[in-house]
Parts: sequence; structure tokens; C-alpha cells
Amino acid sequence: MRFFFSFSFSLFFFFFFFFFFSTSALSSSSNHPLDPLTPSEIQKVTSIIQATSSLAKLHNFTFHYVGLDEPDKPELLSWHSHPASRPKPPRRAFVMARAQRKAHEFVIDLDRGSVASHDIYNGIGYPPVSFEEQNAAAALPLSHPPFIESVKKRGLDVALVVCSAYPAAWFGETNAPKRRQTRLLCFYRGETENLYVMPLEGISFLVDLDEMKIIDYADRFVVPVPTSDGTDYRASKQKPPFGPSTKPVKMVQPQGTSLVVQGHTIRWANWNFHLGFDFRAGPVLSLASIYDPEKHKFRNVLYKARVSELFVPYMDPTEEWYYRAYFDAGEYGFGQCTVPLEPQNDCPETAVFMDAYYAGLNGQPVKIENAVCIFERATGHASWRHTELSIPDKVVREVRPETTLVVRSASVIGNYDYIIDWEFKMGGSIKVRVGLSGVVQVKAVDYTHKDQMKEDAYGTILAENTIGVHHDHFLTFYLDLDVDGSDNSFVKMKMQPMRTDGEFPRKSYWTAVEETAKTEADARIALGGSAADLVVTNPNKKTKVGNHHGYRLISGPPAASLLSDDDFPQKRAAFTKHQVWVTPYNRSEQWAAGMYTDQSRGEDTLDVWSRRNREIENKDIVLWYVMGFHHIPCQEDFPIMPTLSGGFELRPTNFFEYNPILKTKPPHLEHQLNNHTALSTGGVFHP
Amino acid sequence: MRFFFSFSFSLFFFFFFFFFFSTSALSSSSNHPLDPLTPSEIQKVTSIIQATSSLAKLHNFTFHYVGLDEPDKPELLSWHSHPASRPKPPRRAFVMARAQRKAHEFVIDLDRGSVASHDIYNGIGYPPVSFEEQNAAAALPLSHPPFIESVKKRGLDVALVVCSAYPAAWFGETNAPKRRQTRLLCFYRGETENLYVMPLEGISFLVDLDEMKIIDYADRFVVPVPTSDGTDYRASKQKPPFGPSTKPVKMVQPQGTSLVVQGHTIRWANWNFHLGFDFRAGPVLSLASIYDPEKHKFRNVLYKARVSELFVPYMDPTEEWYYRAYFDAGEYGFGQCTVPLEPQNDCPETAVFMDAYYAGLNGQPVKIENAVCIFERATGHASWRHTELSIPDKVVREVRPETTLVVRSASVIGNYDYIIDWEFKMGGSIKVRVGLSGVVQVKAVDYTHKDQMKEDAYGTILAENTIGVHHDHFLTFYLDLDVDGSDNSFVKMKMQPMRTDGEFPRKSYWTAVEETAKTEADARIALGGSAADLVVTNPNKKTKVGNHHGYRLISGPPAASLLSDDDFPQKRAAFTKHQVWVTPYNRSEQWAAGMYTDQSRGEDTLDVWSRRNREIENKDIVLWYVMGFHHIPCQEDFPIMPTLSGGFELRPTNFFEYNPILKTKPPHLEHQLNNHTALSTGGVFHP
Repeated sequence: MRFFFSFSFSLFFFFFFFFFFSTSALSSSSNHPLDPLTPSEIQKVTSIIQATSSLAKLHNFTFHYVGLDEPDKPELLSWHSHPASRPKPPRRAFVMARAQRKAHEFVIDLDRGSVASHDIYNGIGYPPVSFEEQNAAAALPLSHPPFIESVKKRGLDVALVVCSAYPAAWFGETNAPKRRQTRLLCFYRGETENLYVMPLEGISFLVDLDEMKIIDYADRFVVPVPTSDGTDYRASKQKPPFGPSTKPVKMVQPQGTSLVVQGHTIRWANWNFHLGFDFRAGPVLSLASIYDPEKHKFRNVLYKARVSELFVPYMDPTEEWYYRAYFDAGEYGFGQCTVPLEPQNDCPETAVFMDAYYAGLNGQPVKIENAVCIFERATGHASWRHTELSIPDKVVREVRPETTLVVRSASVIGNYDYIIDWEFKMGGSIKVRVGLSGVVQVKAVDYTHKDQMKEDAYGTILAENTIGVHHDHFLTFYLDLDVDGSDNSFVKMKMQPMRTDGEFPRKSYWTAVEETAKTEADARIALGGSAADLVVTNPNKKTKVGNHHGYRLISGPPAASLLSDDDFPQKRAAFTKHQVWVTPYNRSEQWAAGMYTDQSRGEDTLDVWSRRNREIENKDIVLWYVMGFHHIPCQEDFPIMPTLSGGFELRPTNFFEYNPILKTKPPHLEHQLNNHTALSTGGVFHP
Repeated sequence: MRFFFSFSFSLFFFFFFFFFFSTSALSSSSNHPLDPLTPSEIQKVTSIIQATSSLAKLHNFTFHYVGLDEPDKPELLSWHSHPASRPKPPRRAFVMARAQRKAHEFVIDLDRGSVASHDIYNGIGYPPVSFEEQNAAAALPLSHPPFIESVKKRGLDVALVVCSAYPAAWFGETNAPKRRQTRLLCFYRGETENLYVMPLEGISFLVDLDEMKIIDYADRFVVPVPTSDGTDYRASKQKPPFGPSTKPVKMVQPQGTSLVVQGHTIRWANWNFHLGFDFRAGPVLSLASIYDPEKHKFRNVLYKARVSELFVPYMDPTEEWYYRAYFDAGEYGFGQCTVPLEPQNDCPETAVFMDAYYAGLNGQPVKIENAVCIFERATGHASWRHTELSIPDKVVREVRPETTLVVRSASVIGNYDYIIDWEFKMGGSIKVRVGLSGVVQVKAVDYTHKDQMKEDAYGTILAENTIGVHHDHFLTFYLDLDVDGSDNSFVKMKMQPMRTDGEFPRKSYWTAVEETAKTEADARIALGGSAADLVVTNPNKKTKVGNHHGYRLISGPPAASLLSDDDFPQKRAAFTKHQVWVTPYNRSEQWAAGMYTDQSRGEDTLDVWSRRNREIENKDIVLWYVMGFHHIPCQEDFPIMPTLSGGFELRPTNFFEYNPILKTKPPHLEHQLNNHTALSTGGVFHP
């Protein structure tokens, strides 16, 4: 049995003693400038602020984001290209804090041990809500007499009620700044730990987070709490008849691993990249480059890639539900919500794990054990194959089985589980796969059968008294591709239908018309219309035969938000009406729903930035991809949802001179290969 | 080293002696009525025709299709529901043959050893072209003096020329019946076995297949044959620098397999299905049902699923290329083109293999060894997971690693390799994945650099003198779902944007509007427009809470043919303008491009049938899905293409009362499960 480290109110504080670190240790050359803050660095940040700022001595000084203040991109790239001779960028932290109802931003110079800058943010919106605040807010109802009355009225035991905090959003209120608020939802544990399937419907809360008190409470109606029967998903609670089972299939590596993890630098096969972690984003992939044996060097593919935002609007407009349109990265911290992965089950036997750290509300480091796993995956597919039957008296057959490298994390936002995979292929592709699982948010209702439903229930009846409410998921990915350098263009290779002039019997065909996006408007794309390949190219680099080096975005089935443009959640998530966006690189444009997402008003979004319509041709550009799911729940999603997956691929196109895995030998010839080249030694390169 | 059985002109004749079988053996009750014809049955069919038909004694009597004449669906279902008490459907074969330039159709009664019917087909189009004919035609140029002259003119050695037959198609010729023809393409082997990258450009052939002679030859222009340097894909021919390599990752089953193969019946976990094989389709999945532990029975999901047609139009309208718009199932036989899979590389270590048989031109059985593999796949993903952090002082975590069952085959149509996976999930999903690999069809050109290209080259320059021509792939799947019975409806669950009336702060949402397709026109869908879930439901069966049982189609990114409707290839493939079609079940509507696809004129296609606009509500219906790829080749696709994949999923929606894998225990609790239920005994059920 695995050891589950105990989360006290979902948190485990990981205390480091101050004397375990020193300034010199932190700036030691063994660290990579993109490494996430270590626990000791987090604590040092806190100490510096507490030692130098009078505000920090106030009892209500709270930390909402403590993360690496990434070096300027040119500075980092300069160092990265010649790490031995160029100066290492300074090590800095960025802090979002609050004190006396004001938002404070600090940049901390960790090398010097000083505050490099301190600003007060007076704009709209709030920093992410910490787990501690969520838990404190969630505890309020249990001592709120009107709520206790409501519980009794429903014939329930208040000791079995669990509440949870959900963002309050913004619905057109014009008083600025609005108070920092949260909503609460309460559930009943009953005989199940699957609390989400037993909501206390008809009840609304509004909490002032700064005062940490309930400022509005309503109990509009009573409907039965659905039964707990059959809703617990724990293996230990299952009764026959059991579900199907099979004997295990395991992945093994009889000759050992080809993966090399040095700190946060990952080397595998022809890939080399840095794997960081951020409170808002979860895993951060940086400086991914791929070895080109023809050019005898690693070539840049992407500078940085990570989740930027999630938008999850529910489609019930009624009093207790209308505000449910969540921004999981900006409001909750997709990294804060990252959960420990379970060896064997969340990741195959071959996986290695990495812990992650973030700062709690008090600025102390919090550890997420096994936050990320990295494993080589036998996909079961061929990376390429051909059987040649046309040559008389001869059959030629060559097949290459595929192994890939997967970087996985899972973030749990209350009821929902998001599994994010970044998969690296030796052919140069980076595939992103998102798995949706967990528990769908349900609404308790009076009726027990579809026939009783006379009006729109805003969802599917999943069980007696239980509606699975319609909703969407939009995951926005920040993809700062640097294809062979930072200056890139975004090219639409349009498949243009053509008519012939009658010279030949064929009347029609399509041809590829290359259209380079000049400004941001040209690259704002709602997929599903005219056919086109979308490529980030380097207009300054060509293959021998003259094609521009590029990486293509292969999207999944497109889904766009169906909310009205004038609706408040949609204003905040205006970027979910298109699947593809390209912006010029701008250090301050990282979070699609803005830096201060909680209760934001849509004034600082990807959509707003893009409307400036800046030039993006032959510039350092960022590709944004919005992956969408419309979800009409079904009974199979209840009481826990089989993983639904989607994804996209970044695939080299004229980046290499030829198929980069042409010369990859099949396993049975591997020995011969080993005698010839350094590329066989476990994927370790020393460029 | 594996034994490659020798294909003499791509074929290995598998001779059975007549005395090895008898009529009684063939009708033995151990065979399933949907089993493909055995080698002895194929030979018996031939013998019966040769013994009873005067035509068969003619020297030019040729077999073009010998396959199972599937029992009538009601008859088969009647037997299937009560195999012990109902009569087994008679065992019949369907034969497409040719003699004296006429097409003959036979139904052979294998039980009685007689011809049940014999018809002459006088319509448009021809049966599939056999490998023997393709090879005979491909040999013609080597003794055709004008071609030999052309080869010499190019300074090449005729001994290193390899030709190959490609369908002649139809381009508006009105003489009926047009002669049965084929085109030829010739390539140079040079120093490479990758002949497709060295085409002899500028040359056209037209061959009369019945007379087996060249009836038209043209050599319009000479361009250099591209170099063979670096084009051989054989491992043994590679020189440093080699591609990336890693240590192997293997799938193992330390406790053995959960797969049970009895003849052609496959049982695994909660699934039970029949796996057949057909000359035109390749693998055929039938009678797939899934065990429902709540109902204590297997429940029907699909009656039959298979590839129906592929349409692969190239986008070069010039003289030597315009006719290249292939129908790989109807013209070539996607089953005939199925190639032996390579253990370890095409399929994981855990795979079991099945051979397949078809009839050669002379009616004798031809064996395809290892034509299909079946394996349990550790996907590396979680089939569901949740971590619960909201309960004070407690963490609940449950994760189920996913194992699936894959049925795989690969068909090689000249240069291209199609890998088709049918993947069964314990959650009830059937996922289809198509992998495209092999060699892209290239055109030889004068120029060696993109800068020299002044007009449309109809493709991408991939190497010196080499254009990868733009093309599409459209794979059409025949999906005869029988969701809990044969009478089903097709329902569009439309996501309808709605405005609120101002009662609540939210201004908009979407709701699900259920629209049942009444006739075929309602179910002809070009995806990418308005959002909708597409569901095959059983309007006569409901869950306890009143939802109709259903299976949902989750499509991939949509792609439609961009050819003009009045263009000849498009008329023949009119069904590629929509991705989804639903027809009422009709025994004669199996092949989307018609029964006689070769040189067809679009008179017998899915599009034509659908235009009859028949009623499809609460009927036995067939879902057709067209998976499309537009392909602008890139240098990475050369000289052999890294697998590009696409897919779709059939996923239960309100088919089960709840998540059918809720009660599937994680591996470490498997032992406890084994003590409780028969469902653990290796997936073998005895319903």
C-alpha cells in the first residue's frame, strides 16, 4: 500500500530550516535559470519580504503566487547558446501578495537577497485563491446558523456536510473594486465519499474573502438530496456484480531506461528540454530542442509551452448555477491543483516522478509529491512501416515500433480531473493529450424519471434526482515555438479548390496557397471552415531544396464557445471563440484570461491583446491553441467519468531534410547500431 | 530472422488437396456462419463452378471475388439469439468472375455443393483487379519496344525498371461498356528498393486487361529520374549518422493473457465479437456485444463494422497524373492488399495472429500469413481517476490503469500503407485508428530547388527533382450499429445557443435539442458547422431513468473532398463531401463506391442510395463515417513517411445505467475480486 501523505485541509506544509540554504548555494551554476523555485528559495522570498517590507508585518499579509520571475527571453537565450561564456541570468522571483485589501507585486532578487521592485496593483480582478482561503471559506457554513437550519430542514446531519469554494466570477457589477468574494457549494457525504453527487441544492452563498465571512445567504427551495447508493467509486466499497477485469499488461524495460533526468533537464532519444513547474500552469516545458544528425546539432523547436488557462462554463442560467463558469488556471492555479500521481496506475511501471513546490498562503513551501511523471511509452504503434510487393520475386518489409516520451501531470479542480500529457516523438512531433475524468457536476432535482421533465433541465438525468449539467471545457495552451530561432512567421497553407481549363480530363483539383499572416487578425482562426495546414515557419531558414523550416499544428475537432459575446463569462473568455491565435511575444502576455483572473472583467485577455492587431511576420511569435469540449453528460459519466480525451500535435514540416527516423534501426539490429554512433548510448548527447 | 514466405508475383498459392475436406466437414456446427471461407471452401467453390458451368471451362474464366455470401441478417440474428434451437443459416459463397469479357455473379451453396444462382452483370464498371492481372499488366512494358526506347533515351537500364498497375478510372467516356483497362506507372530501382521515389516521368500507358496488351502509349517529355541517394529505407542499407535510438520498452503479461480466441470468435474482458475477413474490406467485425453485469447478459452493440471504401485523389491535373484518384477497396481489394504483420514490430510482443485467405485469379486459395493481430494494450492512460481533496483530513484517490484490446491489420496499396486498428475498451467504447505510412507518391521534375518553380507544381519539393504531390485520403467506414437491437434511430443532440430572459445575471447558455433524423437527408452531415453530438439510439429501450440507449460517434477533425461535384472522380466518390451518412439497412448497400467500382461512373454509390431519402427512424440503420486527410507532403514524409494517424470513437451514451468500469478493481485488489465473480476468469463468459 502506498503512503499517502496527509493533506491537512488539502495542504502539507513542507518546512525547511533556514540554515539549509545560503545565497551562494542558490546561485550555484548547477541550477538552470528556468528551474522552478526550490523550497528554500520560496522560503527565502518570504523572508526577504518579511524582513524588508513593513506591510509584511501586518497579520493579513498573504501570498497568492510565488514563482520564478523568468529571465528576459533574449537574456536567457544568449546564456543558453553559450552557457560557459555568457553570464547566467539573475535569479528572481515574482510574488503576488495581498495586504489590507490591496494587491502587491514584488520582484525579489534572490542573488542579492533584496526586493528588486514593489508595486501595488489597483486594477480590476484578484490573484488566485489559495487552498487555505478556500478551505477557510468552506468551513464557514458549518457555523452559519441559517445554513444549519437549512440542513436540518432537509433532514440531514450537519456533521456529514462538506462545502467547497467556487469562484464568484463577475456579472456586470460596476462598483470598482468589487469586494474579493467566493461562492460556496455544499454537499452531503452520506454513505459515499463521492460528495459531488449529493449536492444541497437551492442554496447560495457569497463570502467576502478578505473578511472571511458569509455576506449573503439564500435557501430558495428544497429538493431531495440524491441517494448515495452506488455512487462511491472506491474499490474497497464495491459490491458484486463487479466490472470486467483482465490480467495485467505491463510495460517493461529489460535493458533499462533511455531517459536522463539531470535536475530539471530531460534528455531522451533526440530530444532535450527543460521541465519546470508553475503554480498557475502546472508543468512548463522550455527550451525543447531536437538533435539533427545531418547538421550535428540540437535545433530549437519551442521556447516555452504550457497550459495558460481553462474556461469551464456550465449551461444552467438559474440562480444557484449561473455564475459557474470557471477559470481554473487564473482563479484556482492549475499548478496548485496538481495532485500526486499514483505509481503503477496513473503512470506505467517505467515512470520516474518529480515533486513540485509552491508557496502557501503564508509564503511557506508546499510540496506536491510525484506531481509529474516522465516515462517512455511503447505506444503499440509503428512509427513507420512499408511492405514492398511490387518487386518481382522479392518482398521488402521494414517496420519501426514506436517508443515515445511522456510528461504527465493531473490537476484536480474540485470534482474534475484533468490529465495533461506532453508526448515527444523521435520523428519530431510533440503531441498534447488531455484526458478528462473525475466527477461531473450534478444538480439535484425533484424528479426521478425523464418523463417527469416538462421544461429544460439544462442537462441529462443521470440517476434519480440527478441532472448532469451541460458544460464546456476550453483549455488554452501557450505555445511559444521558436522554430530554428525566435523570428518566425505563421503561414496558412490553404487548400484552394481549382478548376482546370479543359486541357486535361480532370475538371478540378486543389492546390496549396501559402498565405503568411501579417498581423494578429490574420491568425485568429475559427477552425472548421476552409481547409488549411497551419504552420509556424522560420522565414529565414530553408532546407537545401528551399522549403522554409516549419512546425505544423494538427488540431483536434474544433469546438468554440457558444455563449453570447455580450455575456459576462464570455467577455472574460473571449479567446474561446477561436481555436488559434498568434501574438507577438510579449513578456507580460502569458495568461489568456489576464494576470488577475479572479473576478476579472475581460479587460486583459488574449482577445484584447490580439485586437491591437500587431505585426507578427518574421517576429518572435507565440501560438495559442484552444482545445474545446462540449459535454452533454450521459449515464456512463456517473458516478465517475471514464476518461474522455482530446489532443493536438505539433509536427515538423520541412524542418528536417528528410524523415528523421529513417535511419532509426529496428530493435533486432540495435546491436550493430551501437557500434557505430554515439546516438545509441541511451539517448545522452553532449552537444 | 523471420521467415518471409515468398510471394511469386506477390502471391503465394496455397494448395489444398481436394480430399482434405468434405461437405460434411464444411457444415460442421463448429463453424460460425460468419466465418470467412476456409481455403478448402474456396477451392470447393471453384470446383463447383468448374464442374457445373460450361463457362468455367473456358481458358479465360477468372475469379475476381470469392467470399462469404453473408446470411440474411434476420436469419443470422435469429440463429445467433438461440444457436442451440434455431437452424444455422446455410453456408453460401458469393463469386464475381469474368469470362469472355462479361461479368458473372454466382451464389454457391456450399452445403449442397451446387450453384444456387448465376447471373450476368451487364452494367457499368468492373470487379476488382487481381494481383495476377496487375502483375501481368506490369510486365508488359518490359517487352514493349517503344517503352524500351524511352528507357534507353533516359540512359537507364531496362533490367532495373519495375512497373506497377494503377486503376484507369473513368473520365466521362460514354461508350458503354468501356473496355476493361488499367494504367501503368514505371519506376527505377537503381541503388534503392524504394522504387516509388524514382518514377519514369512523362510516360503514360493504357492496357486492355482482357486482351492483356498495351493499347496506348505516350512518352511526352523527359525529366531526370531523381537520385536514389538516401532513399532506401531498409535498416541494412543505412549509413551513419544514424537516427535516434532508445532501449526497448516492451509490453508483457506476467500472468498470461485474458484473450480467448475460439475460431473467429474473440472474447476479452466484457466484449464478445466475431472477426472475419473479406477480400474487399480486410477485417470484418460482427456481432459485437458487451456484457452488462446489471442485466446479466451480453447486449448488442454492432452487427457489422468494416472498411467500405477508400478514395485517394491526387491533385495534379496534368496528362500523366489526372487519372490518379483511387478506390482502394473496390478497385484493388483492401483485403487482397492486406500484408503479413511483423511480430514485435507491427504488433507488440503480446499479440496473437490470424491468417487470412482469399481466392486468386484461378480460384485457388491464397494465404496471407499473420494478416490480423490481436493484442491487449496497456495504453499508459488511466481509464478513470479521481483525487478527492475537499474532505477535511482525508485524501481519497482511485485510479484505474487502462488495458484495451486491439485488432490490427495493414493494407499496402502499392506505395501507401494503411494501418487499421479496432480498439475495444472496457468502458464500452470502440475506437478506430487509422495510421498512414509508406511512401508518398512523387513526381519527377526538372528543377532541384523551390526557387526554380515558377508555376504550380501541384505539390511540395521534397528533394532534388522530386515533388510530393498533394492528395487526399478518405476512408469510409460501414458501421451497422445494432444498439440493443436492430431498430435504431439517428439523433442529433444539437447544442443550441440560448438567450436568457433577464431573470438571472447570465445572458446566454446552450441547451441540448434532440432532433431525430426522419429520412436519409436529415442524417447527411458535413461536420464543422453547428455543434452537435451524433447518437445512434434505440428508441424502444430506455434506462431506468428514461434515457434512450445509445452509442455516440466522436469524430476526428472533419475533412471533405474539395473536388467539383461535376468532376468525374468526385461523381464516383460523391459520398466524400459529407462525413456522416445514415441509410436503412439494405443487404446490397455495402460498398460506398458501388459493387463494380473499377471504372464506375458514380451510378451505384452511397450518395445515390441516400438521395432516395428513405425513412430511417426506428429502423435497422447503418451509420457511415468518412474519415478524411488532406495531405500537403513535407520533407519529413520522404523517403518514407512517419505514421500520421486519425480516428473516431463509438462511445456508449446512456447505454449503461452507470459507468460500466466503476466496479473494475485496480490491479492490487484484483485478487479479492477473483474470489467473487466469474468475470475475472480471463474474460471468458458463458452467457
